[in-house]
Amino acid sequence: MPPLDELLGHDIDTLQVTDEPQKLDPASIAERDTLMKRESGVTENSPMRLRMEEFIKEQQKEIVRELEKVDGKKFRVDTWTRESGGGGISSVLQDGNVFEKAGVNISVVYGTLPRPAIEKMRVNHKAIDPAVTSLDFFAAGLSMVLHPVNPMAPTVHLNYRYFETENPDGTSNAWWFGGGTDLTPSYLFDEDAIHFHKTMKEACDKHDKSYYPRFKKWCDSYFSNKHRGESRGVGGIFFDDLDEQEKDQENTFAFAQSCLKAFLPSYIPIIMKRKDMPYTEKEKEWQQIRRGRYVEFNLVHDRGTAFGLNTPSARVESILMSLPLTASWRYMYEPEKGSKEQRLVDVLREPKEWV
Amino acid sequence: MPPLDELLGHDIDTLQVTDEPQKLDPASIAERDTLMKRESGVTENSPMRLRMEEFIKEQQKEIVRELEKVDGKKFRVDTWTRESGGGGISSVLQDGNVFEKAGVNISVVYGTLPRPAIEKMRVNHKAIDPAVTSLDFFAAGLSMVLHPVNPMAPTVHLNYRYFETENPDGTSNAWWFGGGTDLTPSYLFDEDAIHFHKTMKEACDKHDKSYYPRFKKWCDSYFSNKHRGESRGVGGIFFDDLDEQEKDQENTFAFAQSCLKAFLPSYIPIIMKRKDMPYTEKEKEWQQIRRGRYVEFNLVHDRGTAFGLNTPSARVESILMSLPLTASWRYMYEPEKGSKEQRLVDVLREPKEWV
Repeated sequence: MPPLDELLGHDIDTLQVTDEPQKLDPASIAERDTLMKRESGVTENSPMRLRMEEFIKEQQKEIVRELEKVDGKKFRVDTWTRESGGGGISSVLQDGNVFEKAGVNISVVYGTLPRPAIEKMRVNHKAIDPAVTSLDFFAAGLSMVLHPVNPMAPTVHLNYRYFETENPDGTSNAWWFGGGTDLTPSYLFDEDAIHFHKTMKEACDKHDKSYYPRFKKWCDSYFSNKHRGESRGVGGIFFDDLDEQEKDQENTFAFAQSCLKAFLPSYIPIIMKRKDMPYTEKEKEWQQIRRGRYVEFNLVHDRGTAFGLNTPSARVESILMSLPLTASWRYMYEPEKGSKEQRLVDVLREPKEWV
Repeated sequence: MPPLDELLGHDIDTLQVTDEPQKLDPASIAERDTLMKRESGVTENSPMRLRMEEFIKEQQKEIVRELEKVDGKKFRVDTWTRESGGGGISSVLQDGNVFEKAGVNISVVYGTLPRPAIEKMRVNHKAIDPAVTSLDFFAAGLSMVLHPVNPMAPTVHLNYRYFETENPDGTSNAWWFGGGTDLTPSYLFDEDAIHFHKTMKEACDKHDKSYYPRFKKWCDSYFSNKHRGESRGVGGIFFDDLDEQEKDQENTFAFAQSCLKAFLPSYIPIIMKRKDMPYTEKEKEWQQIRRGRYVEFNLVHDRGTAFGLNTPSARVESILMSLPLTASWRYMYEPEKGSKEQRLVDVLREPKEWV
């Protein structure tokens, strides 16, 4: 099973997803989609499933191409398919010149939700018929984590996904978009945080002036190591369950596209500025401690990862590609007062407004 | 709050523990115990609370003393107290000659359980009155994790704990012991696994011939990275909720004592044999991959750790002292066929009988 973790987003910790056909045959929509792609290609009139799949595939290629230019090394590409329809492509670069570990994955899932999962989903999506006993669904998303070698260069994470449930006749029922992009520095350069947030805000503002403030706040509250009283990083944007109660499908897709397309301009200038900065062994050690915190968030708090790992026959290597190549835990490690390390911790304890 | 994580054992993922006095004053039993210790010391006639506390304190000292002999460096000792009674001692050795990170902690907790926690506990302990709305409890335990530098030397974990609930008049109500010791090698030496299990079996056999087979199996099933289809290591013993339905308190305490006392003879001969073995960089790297798996178990599956981290004002540094100093995650890392690394993975996939 491909990494459903981030794909299903907020609802997934409460879901039991199955590969087994229940009342309906989940392969049928997958088969219909395959046929449609083969016969007429993907156009503006195609179902959103096909348009989202095509969009994330293009974006994966473009991001991989740009990151290879930055790094000088090539990504390893693994492709897999699911028996019940769909599949994925994992692109991973390890031990690069610039990136210690970089993963850019897409996955596409055709599956069936059983009754308890349907009831949970109805809380956010009223279009879902409460009477059905099982429900076909489709999910497609791109997720990415980049861990650079240089401790002055920040880790970045991104995930955008589209989810829909199907009527018995194969037409789409409920649908929603979710996702986010967030930055996790070991050393804080204010200008980087400002540039990153500014780029995210511009992407949001084109669609709705209320989006950036709402989704910036949501990001700070989700990517939080609550047990440490710290945010994971300096945030960015995060949203989930964006459906027709908010805006129509066309506009919401356009918004998700803007967010994803904003990634390269938000991050490339930062990595170019930081990748060759000099650093000390002690600074590398601090980065390792911060990587430990990243592992803590992903394994303890991230609902997607927990869900993925508890899903039978999950593709563990794709789910855990988000973990850094190396991390460290030092007992009672305390940054010196007034140090750059302490400054980062102070900001993580009280998230700032950057734009 | 001290690390309740392993103290409360199996029941804790379902508990909400509070520091706040509710109907009863939780300080009162703590105060009475403090007074008793001061006036008459701890004898065979003292309540089990005081005897267990004294026993784990002695054992902590002895284990720390022996490990310092092996390592040549000293442990750092942090002592803390809890407002509502009790406290703990964390002893940690980091960057040692033999141990990369070694933690030997004890903690003693006087607290109050609210109603939902009481109902969950009644499933295993019928002596708990179903009518009460809150319940004072006491928990004391020793927990230890040792991560050696040398990849040929195994990581070892141990935890023994005593738990009791109190009647409104301050007498003890339900009580139980829990705990275990398990070994996690990066390179498998059969003779080490055999010696370790043999020592555990001897400690068990003195008390009940059925214990070792039962608790060996329980250990294999608990310390399992289910998402990887692998055990964490080669196991040992693990048990929980041992109360008067099994044997009387005196015999159960004697059993827990035997298990804890068996630790030094089970592990010291192994570490002495392995600590100075030559190793390659590649073998150190494999150890780091295995350390990554250790982190995965502790953060994803260990109910105690999850509970501890979700407890407000938990002492995070004591809970996470179980994590290794360094760990690594390599995408799609596969040991070579027929290699020593592959042999370990084979055994972790299908736990063996060692004695």
